[in-house]
Amino acid sequence: MQTATTEVPVRYAETDQMGVVYHANYLVYMELGRTALIESLGCDYVAMEDAGVVSPVLEVQIKYRKPLRYGEAARIKTWIEKYDGLRVVYGYEILNPRGELCATATSVNVCVDKKTFMPVAMKRSFPDWHRVYEQAKKG
Amino acid sequence: MQTATTEVPVRYAETDQMGVVYHANYLVYMELGRTALIESLGCDYVAMEDAGVVSPVLEVQIKYRKPLRYGEAARIKTWIEKYDGLRVVYGYEILNPRGELCATATSVNVCVDKKTFMPVAMKRSFPDWHRVYEQAKKG
Amino acid sequence: MQTATTEVPVRYAETDQMGVVYHANYLVYMELGRTALIESLGCDYVAMEDAGVVSPVLEVQIKYRKPLRYGEAARIKTWIEKYDGLRVVYGYEILNPRGELCATATSVNVCVDKKTFMPVAMKRSFPDWHRVYEQAKKG
Amino acid sequence: MQTATTEVPVRYAETDQMGVVYHANYLVYMELGRTALIESLGCDYVAMEDAGVVSPVLEVQIKYRKPLRYGEAARIKTWIEKYDGLRVVYGYEILNPRGELCATATSVNVCVDKKTFMPVAMKRSFPDWHRVYEQAKKG
Repeated sequence: MQTATTEVPVRYAETDQMGVVYHANYLVYMELGRTALIESLGCDYVAMEDAGVVSPVLEVQIKYRKPLRYGEAARIKTWIEKYDGLRVVYGYEILNPRGELCATATSVNVCVDKKTFMPVAMKRSFPDWHRVYEQAKKG
Repeated sequence: MQTATTEVPVRYAETDQMGVVYHANYLVYMELGRTALIESLGCDYVAMEDAGVVSPVLEVQIKYRKPLRYGEAARIKTWIEKYDGLRVVYGYEILNPRGELCATATSVNVCVDKKTFMPVAMKRSFPDWHRVYEQAKKG
Repeated sequence: MQTATTEVPVRYAETDQMGVVYHANYLVYMELGRTALIESLGCDYVAMEDAGVVSPVLEVQIKYRKPLRYGEAARIKTWIEKYDGLRVVYGYEILNPRGELCATATSVNVCVDKKTFMPVAMKRSFPDWHRVYEQAKKG
Repeated sequence: MQTATTEVPVRYAETDQMGVVYHANYLVYMELGRTALIESLGCDYVAMEDAGVVSPVLEVQIKYRKPLRYGEAARIKTWIEKYDGLRVVYGYEILNPRGELCATATSVNVCVDKKTFMPVAMKRSFPDWHRVYEQAKKG
């Protein structure tokens, strides 16, 4: 299993009046983790969109354990939890600078045609992605 | 079981280059639904924060079924799925103007002290909230 | 001169750890004001985009006078300050529920082709918009 | 005059359905530029907030020249345009990876007491900041 780690300093804009990172912004962090993983696998998401395919999120599950604060950087670990040629389940851990777990999450992504939002099988349409996802996945 | 329904026109700022509402913004819609429910129950969240207590989200589960687009209004239905005096599980359905289900979700919220983030029992500290939550909850 | 007024309750997501609305979100409020004005003039922005034209912001000037807080609704007044057939200067006032001025702003918008981002003259391509903008403008 | 330069990859979340970075997000980029400048000057904004002082934005002026797109990184140059012991005028240029100017902007910041939002003179309350701002400013 291949894991990507990326560091994202908390932005002031991401805090709310509780004095911590607003919870919806963790989904943006997850996307940054996914982006880092995709790049580390040598895949090119911009090229996928240029080919008329986008990859929407179908499901998110997230548990918040500790708040992240301005002045800290989020450390985001991302891996491929499951992959079946069509759907990808990504796994995530988000940690603070002291190494404490702030959130754990999974998301499910698919590929769809940009115009119709009809499913596109990664296995058939993006065989290069398929190959590296097969090799990098956990299970 | 009491359900609140609120309509939220999609903002241009909420779309992304897929041409649909960016998935993290559904968590903001969920919060607006929660706010509408809390108001319909006669509770006052601003007063809770003035009393030094905030109510962070502990968990989110969301399934995206159909994209929402600019020019549409999201119809958000929110209810109390479970409540045990400490944790609240809210349930959500988000529909488009044609009545089609765009997302289903749950979130878990608790009350914590604003300074320490230590749990505060709603049952003890906010007995008025407790009473209406007991009456309004589904299960 | 025609002015549109719209009320926007502050969202928790829009606050930051200063305990007030994060300053960049006023530009979203301005867009909501612009949308309300365009609707009140009987124009249809979604139809404009369907015709392959988008209307980006070229300039923003904003002065922040008083903070807006969660629990308040922003009252946004919007009008057409200037219009010359190509560029629109919108004017804005954002007030709190006590009628106090929280921000004053202007923005400059144009129409461009969605693919090339080359300017499109509203006067020629959208004569209906042109006519109502001529009538509604201040100067 | 001292200038800080920082690179910020465009996030998918920052795009809108025009296929470019949503205009309000440039104010977030400006804040990241300001943060980079403050760090390069050896000042500590988190410590300032810990001392009960926050630094809201009083004014923004921005001109958008070219759109930024997903797949690009924004290069943000930030400097102190003016400083008088109380108000700071920051200047900004935002460029795309081809070195083309995408936006020019200024913002005015002050320091205020976190509770009362009453002005705090940087010169008196933060003499270390004052000294480096005097040395780093353009005019």
